[in-house]
Amino acid sequence: MDFEILLKQIDFIKEIDKVKYIQRKTKLFNSNRNENDAEHSWHLAMMALILAEHANEPIDVLKVIKMVLIHDIVEIDAGDTFIYDTQKNHVNTDQERLAANRIFGLLPQEQSKEFIAVWEEFEEGLTAEAKFARTMDRLEPLLQNTSNNGGTWKEFDVDYSKVIKKKKIINEGSTTIWKYAEELINESVEKGILRKD
Amino acid sequence: MDFEILLKQIDFIKEIDKVKYIQRKTKLFNSNRNENDAEHSWHLAMMALILAEHANEPIDVLKVIKMVLIHDIVEIDAGDTFIYDTQKNHVNTDQERLAANRIFGLLPQEQSKEFIAVWEEFEEGLTAEAKFARTMDRLEPLLQNTSNNGGTWKEFDVDYSKVIKKKKIINEGSTTIWKYAEELINESVEKGILRKD
Repeated sequence: MDFEILLKQIDFIKEIDKVKYIQRKTKLFNSNRNENDAEHSWHLAMMALILAEHANEPIDVLKVIKMVLIHDIVEIDAGDTFIYDTQKNHVNTDQERLAANRIFGLLPQEQSKEFIAVWEEFEEGLTAEAKFARTMDRLEPLLQNTSNNGGTWKEFDVDYSKVIKKKKIINEGSTTIWKYAEELINESVEKGILRKD
Repeated sequence: MDFEILLKQIDFIKEIDKVKYIQRKTKLFNSNRNENDAEHSWHLAMMALILAEHANEPIDVLKVIKMVLIHDIVEIDAGDTFIYDTQKNHVNTDQERLAANRIFGLLPQEQSKEFIAVWEEFEEGLTAEAKFARTMDRLEPLLQNTSNNGGTWKEFDVDYSKVIKKKKIINEGSTTIWKYAEELINESVEKGILRKD
């Protein structure tokens, strides 16, 4: 039997195991243990399934799930970029594009093209699906930090205006979720776990 | 603003963070580190996306992904059951059903019903989607064990006939993947990492 296509897919499946070793700055809920990219991606996929009804526009849920499942795979080569890092900008860097070409390039050609396109669509953030996927990506660490007495906000001295600036993109994917997120952020200031400038 | 529905969903999203702490017996690829259920579920979802074309019957990929993303959530209450455990049978126990009712019961009513139904469909294993989801669930540890010099087969003295017995269910979801899996198992015997009875 000719396993040519399957073997390429299996190579990709083995390669992406490395996502489980990529540590994020954020910690699990009520925890001191860092989250890794595989756990994070699973949680975002669950959130997208659960919260889809709050999207501002009709969305293709499968597309959103593809986006959140694969969005951090490029970090196998490019490493994690912390959202509040002032040195390294979290934009679509050349390094991430090279990583996407190498890693998704392990797949059969058509599938490789499809996954690179989905990853680019997420990074550009212009479609309804990309906006909602990014809403999920911004919401999870907000929930984690509020459960962790300030979490990375305290650890890296991030203040209210920086948080609002990074999080307001949630509104593009879901006005409802943004209203909830804003309340959480304001409550965090009241509780003293987020510093107002 | 009334966040009634959203708040229930957020409670569920926080609760399932516990999936990240549930250790499986299998190890990551080429590794001595145990995999947890969140990492495992993410990997199965990726595999379902990548391998869908090999399914024996037409499948609703989103449904398969829902199944693999949620299939281990009941282990928050019921714990992980090792597939080669001779004491505890890996069937749909009362404990798992109670867990499903409690955990998915955190969601708004309609969503709760939907997720319990999807979980039950996976457990019953009768539909095309459930069969393919179970194919993914059986394939991942096979790939891990062959990358780990026998992995849990060696660790728990599991022999060839037991492996074939547990793995042949792969054939119900995908004949192509089963042919590949059978080759892997036979090669493992030849390499001396799986004991023939």
